[in-house]
Amino acid sequence: MDTLDLLRNRRTIRKYNDTPIGDELLSELLEVAFRAPTTGGMQLYSVVVTRDNEMKQKLAPTHFNQPTVTSAPVVLTFCADYNRFVKWCEASDAQPGYDNFASFTTAMIDTLLVAQQFNTAAELRGLGCCYLGTTTYNAPQIAEILNLPRLVVPVTTLTVGFPADVPQQVERLPLEAIVHHEQYKDYTTDDIHRLYAEKEALPANKRFVEENGKATLAQVFTDVRYTKKDNEYFSRIWADFIASQGFK
Amino acid sequence: MDTLDLLRNRRTIRKYNDTPIGDELLSELLEVAFRAPTTGGMQLYSVVVTRDNEMKQKLAPTHFNQPTVTSAPVVLTFCADYNRFVKWCEASDAQPGYDNFASFTTAMIDTLLVAQQFNTAAELRGLGCCYLGTTTYNAPQIAEILNLPRLVVPVTTLTVGFPADVPQQVERLPLEAIVHHEQYKDYTTDDIHRLYAEKEALPANKRFVEENGKATLAQVFTDVRYTKKDNEYFSRIWADFIASQGFK
Repeated sequence: MDTLDLLRNRRTIRKYNDTPIGDELLSELLEVAFRAPTTGGMQLYSVVVTRDNEMKQKLAPTHFNQPTVTSAPVVLTFCADYNRFVKWCEASDAQPGYDNFASFTTAMIDTLLVAQQFNTAAELRGLGCCYLGTTTYNAPQIAEILNLPRLVVPVTTLTVGFPADVPQQVERLPLEAIVHHEQYKDYTTDDIHRLYAEKEALPANKRFVEENGKATLAQVFTDVRYTKKDNEYFSRIWADFIASQGFK
Repeated sequence: MDTLDLLRNRRTIRKYNDTPIGDELLSELLEVAFRAPTTGGMQLYSVVVTRDNEMKQKLAPTHFNQPTVTSAPVVLTFCADYNRFVKWCEASDAQPGYDNFASFTTAMIDTLLVAQQFNTAAELRGLGCCYLGTTTYNAPQIAEILNLPRLVVPVTTLTVGFPADVPQQVERLPLEAIVHHEQYKDYTTDDIHRLYAEKEALPANKRFVEENGKATLAQVFTDVRYTKKDNEYFSRIWADFIASQGFK
């Protein structure tokens, strides 16, 4: 099979079988992940590996008890990290100026590229992963559990394991919905209806609307999954936490 | 060769030969990229494709005239995008609540995973890419050039082409510098010296220190490449721009 097909056919895996992930395999995947592009060669990230069941139990509530956390053999918390780099500056007679939002953004970019490179490496080795968006929601609690110092902020989490089963691949919007040529071409209402028609027509999504007692699929997102109230609440926590970790 | 070796041996490519990138190849790579994990299936990103020379000339100064912008056959600006999703909500009798920092963060995460998935797909097809960190520095100008509406923010840029030559692979810190087991183990000054010793000893880095007239490698970063003054200046621009695009 063409390697690109592996990427094309990938899917998120939330359920794992009992096959353990050896230290050697994990190290190999991390090493490959750290080959991801990084700003100025600075590698502004750290990865905290959770294998211990007690630590998984502690992390679980910060991820709203998604079962993937406690059932995965390995949980990886990817952190934007200027702590190590700043300590290197201080040990090298250099005056760091990285306690600011632009530097945080740079570290966040570095961290996410590494996370995705890990995800791909793991998938190419037959493992499956699941990203946990809850990481930024409950960053303060995660930082406490993982003992993260100043200038270290958890950005995303991957649960990793060998797939128990392979779910159906989920839908994507057509290419023309995402790609703009030379300049951004804004969407008319007609465009929107056309581009989302296939998504809305999927039986799984129709069921989803029904189960949630809503009139449209979008309402499931706005009223149930990602509400204004929650988003505003977590915005404050996240912004405050970034600042309290030293990025003002 | 093992596929993982392709990821392990990858490097950033800044110089391209004359081989064009056909529409079919580009579409294939984008399609594969959009298979990257995305929060709740929302696909909170857009990609603006720049092929036109005049548009590359306009973008070049926003990337501090790095020659890779005008010499690459294709430049891709990856944008965090809630505009499309919000328009879908509005067309679906749903009340969106995504004009906030948590939502921006979610879109930024989505966007970076897609960018890295594109980067990997391109590399697996023999292309080379270069990320431009300047995207967040000069986001306001880029947004103007690319006609980005409210709720759309450029997050990163990839220049893409077939490699003119393959540079030496650059160094990475040892695994133990990045990976923490169960909890973050902070670094002593001795740790720092040990973990950065190999990096500092590299002839290319020693030359870099000398060329910049500095005493240590870290000083090249703090005093020349990523200065406190620049970081603070771009922090304000970036934070203000995110807010002005509607994420408060």
